[in-house]
Amino acid sequence: MPVRILAHPDRGELQLDAVLSALSDPVRRRIASQLADGLDDQACIAFQLPVSKSTSTHHFRILREAGVIEQHYRGTAILNSLRATDLKARFPGLLQAILQAARNDAASPTTERP
Amino acid sequence: MPVRILAHPDRGELQLDAVLSALSDPVRRRIASQLADGLDDQACIAFQLPVSKSTSTHHFRILREAGVIEQHYRGTAILNSLRATDLKARFPGLLQAILQAARNDAASPTTERP
Repeated sequence: MPVRILAHPDRGELQLDAVLSALSDPVRRRIASQLADGLDDQACIAFQLPVSKSTSTHHFRILREAGVIEQHYRGTAILNSLRATDLKARFPGLLQAILQAARNDAASPTTERP
Repeated sequence: MPVRILAHPDRGELQLDAVLSALSDPVRRRIASQLADGLDDQACIAFQLPVSKSTSTHHFRILREAGVIEQHYRGTAILNSLRATDLKARFPGLLQAILQAARNDAASPTTERP
């Protein structure tokens, strides 16, 4: 069976617009945070997201196309890893600042969470 | 003549989604960068933006509603300031990381600019 390959931007092609837009959504930040806090190669099913499967697939795709995550097939499962090294090389400190801001945001008593 | 007041979110109301979304646009990052590099109270007309006046007004409004800039009237002119202190208090390091990433992005030979 041919291996399905998913398209990714190269490191040099990462666009700040796309990265910021991808991470402007709380579900997508949650995916990035879980990958940042955990291991590489986490299956999509390992994420407890408050959205439907098709919406979840959409969010993973946005993150991949922006270059925030790397996705590849293992059998029929798609495994996900954070492109932390590429992001750090291209936009130093950015991912860290956003994930930290997300933690502050979640911890803030003035912020209503969905 | 009554003074027109423009609505702004309080510091505690700043939302990460809105801030990242506001700064995911290159024209809006350019406004924020110019304010970060310069003085407070810059008139909209002081920004050399590659868009129409109405589009420019739209971009300033998005930044204000996200809490990235403060706007107030002086006569018929609207003056703009960066809410650097509020952003730093709410999301430490975030604005700095984004503006630095924008500088890297602009300097990158692999990036096509519009």
